[in-house]
Amino acid sequence: MAAAGLTIPKTSTRAITSPSGTADSMEVLAPVTFTSEEVEEIISNLKACIIWGGSLDIAPADSVLIEVERPLHFDPIGLMIPSILAKKLSMGVKKIVLDVPVGEGTKFKTPMDGKKFAHLFKQIADNVGVVADCALTLAHQPIGHCIGPAIEAQEALTLLRDYAAGPNSLIEKSTSLAGIILEMGGKAKPDEGQLMAKEILRSGKAYKKMKEIIEIQGGNPEITPEEIKLGPHKKEFYSNKSGHITEVDNSIINQIAKAAGCPYSKTSGVQIYKKQGAMVKEGDKIFTIYSSSNTKLKRAEKIYNRTGGPIILGGMLIERI
Amino acid sequence: MAAAGLTIPKTSTRAITSPSGTADSMEVLAPVTFTSEEVEEIISNLKACIIWGGSLDIAPADSVLIEVERPLHFDPIGLMIPSILAKKLSMGVKKIVLDVPVGEGTKFKTPMDGKKFAHLFKQIADNVGVVADCALTLAHQPIGHCIGPAIEAQEALTLLRDYAAGPNSLIEKSTSLAGIILEMGGKAKPDEGQLMAKEILRSGKAYKKMKEIIEIQGGNPEITPEEIKLGPHKKEFYSNKSGHITEVDNSIINQIAKAAGCPYSKTSGVQIYKKQGAMVKEGDKIFTIYSSSNTKLKRAEKIYNRTGGPIILGGMLIERI
Repeated sequence: MAAAGLTIPKTSTRAITSPSGTADSMEVLAPVTFTSEEVEEIISNLKACIIWGGSLDIAPADSVLIEVERPLHFDPIGLMIPSILAKKLSMGVKKIVLDVPVGEGTKFKTPMDGKKFAHLFKQIADNVGVVADCALTLAHQPIGHCIGPAIEAQEALTLLRDYAAGPNSLIEKSTSLAGIILEMGGKAKPDEGQLMAKEILRSGKAYKKMKEIIEIQGGNPEITPEEIKLGPHKKEFYSNKSGHITEVDNSIINQIAKAAGCPYSKTSGVQIYKKQGAMVKEGDKIFTIYSSSNTKLKRAEKIYNRTGGPIILGGMLIERI
Repeated sequence: MAAAGLTIPKTSTRAITSPSGTADSMEVLAPVTFTSEEVEEIISNLKACIIWGGSLDIAPADSVLIEVERPLHFDPIGLMIPSILAKKLSMGVKKIVLDVPVGEGTKFKTPMDGKKFAHLFKQIADNVGVVADCALTLAHQPIGHCIGPAIEAQEALTLLRDYAAGPNSLIEKSTSLAGIILEMGGKAKPDEGQLMAKEILRSGKAYKKMKEIIEIQGGNPEITPEEIKLGPHKKEFYSNKSGHITEVDNSIINQIAKAAGCPYSKTSGVQIYKKQGAMVKEGDKIFTIYSSSNTKLKRAEKIYNRTGGPIILGGMLIERI
């Protein structure tokens, strides 16, 4: 969106109860902690940034809210709306697109739950003078194939560098959200936003803008995905049977990624290779865990073995009664 | 199962509210209407048959029940259990495996609905001295790729002739049901039934037995899948966008297949090419309708165009609010 000329002062969060937040991944590529004055300078230069919202003191109560949430391992919905709006208001944001991921293992199990939240969010945003659109997005399985700060940065950079590298779910999700922003910002006609966002991504303009953001925030703009370090400890898992993937369980992935050290250990993370509906053959590699610590790797492996892992293979028989 | 030496006097139904019943498909390969005396002779010779239960007068009330159901376009669950058990009891069956398909567009929307029915069925069967096992099977999308009497016979014969031809969902479903029967009949050890059923299918023993059944019922045992006639009227549909298949809608398929003439017109039917989770590119062939009548083909096409067809492609965005 920034590549299309919109001002996008993106404040992002660190992971609260999840294995990685946008700020955690961005920090692999560049610093994300700035004072308000520094952010103002970045924005006036580049009209875009990807920073950690928590360091700014722009929404002092919010940091307290999030500190309270973390020990509870739970983001209460009642706190989410003021927490989100406080940060955006402080950045002078007038229009918001809020991603509302829906599906098993997320905050909103069904589209109906997500819808209720979206309507409430829109209404409260409206009360404080912010135009909000909510995008209910499919999240019954991970977006892309990677979970963890460094490995997600690697995946995003790979896509920015080469559209054809995919993964498709990441292209679809990011461009559908970016498309809504382009429409709200008047850069694209109604229903043409996603097409424009895809073109910006495909043409390399989005990659160019990302490099500028990395550089202005003090990172190395020429870093390649291959140079991003993972692990160094690593364990690969292979399927012990053939079948179709009926489910990729987000909550097992999150447990394993956190046991491996996410989000505090940047190089820890997990990778999946195929998604729901895909055919898996016995012996196919289906999962990899990376960890900065061998002890944590063993702990993560134990969760994989105890749960059977997040990749659920199904025959046609659900149950015999 | 018959190839393993069990006596399998299979009475099947014609389609009631669906586009094709087992009896409708079998009739493409051989007659299915016999007197009780003829059936007794077939069974004493071959220990197996695939006949239409309705012609036998073995369960006279049942034909009346089904005649009542058809005009209502609805199989009431209260009638299903006596209808099934009456036919099986008349054939002297002592053990039953009942397939209970579960999913959107079937009689049982959720596994919980299917489970309740299964427990009720087991209990009523037990009251009349029949041992019943129910297999809850995945039916949120079609099994295999074909719907319609002749096209399903073609698909089944193709698989019987060559295991590698698949489709995988048909192999998985048929062998998981056959496996339960092999276990109940004492031919396979617990949990080894499906493996044995797959071996029987792979080795060609199942195909040999099928040819014997076709022959004894008066059909041509050497018929090849290629010789089974479809159409002759036909319309192919191509995807007008790219995406992943998020849903294959059973109820739209059924509407289209019935409009095309199923089950009364044997050569009418539909074919799908990819299932849930698969990637579709713009311009890929995704659906074919066959019909014996050009008028009916047009009617079926209209349903496809009005509904957008049964193959639902999804981006990641569910809804914008």
